[in-house]
Amino acid sequence: MITDTITITLPPWVGEFLGADELFLPTAEERMRLVVTLARLNVERGSGGPFGAALFESESGRLVAVGVNLVVRGNCSILHAEMVALVLAQRMLGSFDLSGPGIPACQLVTSAEPCAMCLGAIPWSGVRHLLCGARGADVEEVGFDEGAKPAEWVETLERRGIRVVGDCCRDEAVAVLRQYAAAGGAIYNGGWASGS
Amino acid sequence: MITDTITITLPPWVGEFLGADELFLPTAEERMRLVVTLARLNVERGSGGPFGAALFESESGRLVAVGVNLVVRGNCSILHAEMVALVLAQRMLGSFDLSGPGIPACQLVTSAEPCAMCLGAIPWSGVRHLLCGARGADVEEVGFDEGAKPAEWVETLERRGIRVVGDCCRDEAVAVLRQYAAAGGAIYNGGWASGS
Repeated sequence: MITDTITITLPPWVGEFLGADELFLPTAEERMRLVVTLARLNVERGSGGPFGAALFESESGRLVAVGVNLVVRGNCSILHAEMVALVLAQRMLGSFDLSGPGIPACQLVTSAEPCAMCLGAIPWSGVRHLLCGARGADVEEVGFDEGAKPAEWVETLERRGIRVVGDCCRDEAVAVLRQYAAAGGAIYNGGWASGS
Repeated sequence: MITDTITITLPPWVGEFLGADELFLPTAEERMRLVVTLARLNVERGSGGPFGAALFESESGRLVAVGVNLVVRGNCSILHAEMVALVLAQRMLGSFDLSGPGIPACQLVTSAEPCAMCLGAIPWSGVRHLLCGARGADVEEVGFDEGAKPAEWVETLERRGIRVVGDCCRDEAVAVLRQYAAAGGAIYNGGWASGS
């Protein structure tokens, strides 16, 4: 008998941290500080890697969903923070297309530039805006693999009508990456056993 | 209050089709015919797009997990057949790294070449072998978007020690794509509302 179900759940501290009220964050910096805080708490609570993400309504700043890296905790290599946030946002809004009818334009905010997988997932998600903190080079500096991203990855999104802004609160985002590396956090790239 | 949980479940017909016994498929063609059949049944049962995938132990041919496209049914743009198969295989084997200790080398078999997202996910998953049916061009011919894949995508995997074989039972895999398109099946690329 094969497995036919998987459940993905955020760590309990996330809900406690966010509280029960709706959250509106008008500025890019406020939104980025939220996801960098999620990344830092994910490290400090021992629930995963140093990455956080969130999905906002671009204009109103209403928080729709959040994600943190759950690769190790969830035993699942695709559970990068961005993927978790996208999946939960689509569930919340009841649509596989965040550009669908009746859905305000959405922004994905991520504490670090997306890897090749997350980059590939963004156009399918329907998000219209991407805001990044740390750069791919910052992520690689602490040992994570970004995968085979096109050098012109920003342009590949812009050509699809997805606007990209980077380097938002970059120093704060990088500080969390370094905090994780300094504490000896797991670098969970695939293919460990083969040494690749 | 934000959503903190998502459950992903295969359609009930999948378990009925596979039965309760362990399945061993020694040859590439047998494995591909299984995933092409899953793709075809996914269309015929109305549970999703014309794509199937499965995870096998490369040597023994033991079936570990299967996936079908669940984007529309699951309201989730990342639920491509390959992603579903990888997630369920990692859950089945209890590891986010299918190259991890004690796990035999694994092969991802997919009825069509991976899109940019699934391609990016493959190195993180720990699979050592990839077997594809239809080509990316075949997928695009019926209207699906493959995303910003590197032209040398096979080499990007081979350089990471992942061996790629394509064109396995290609005609049979393409027939399912055309069956879906001819029946007016949904082409669920992201960004519908914006016309991109």
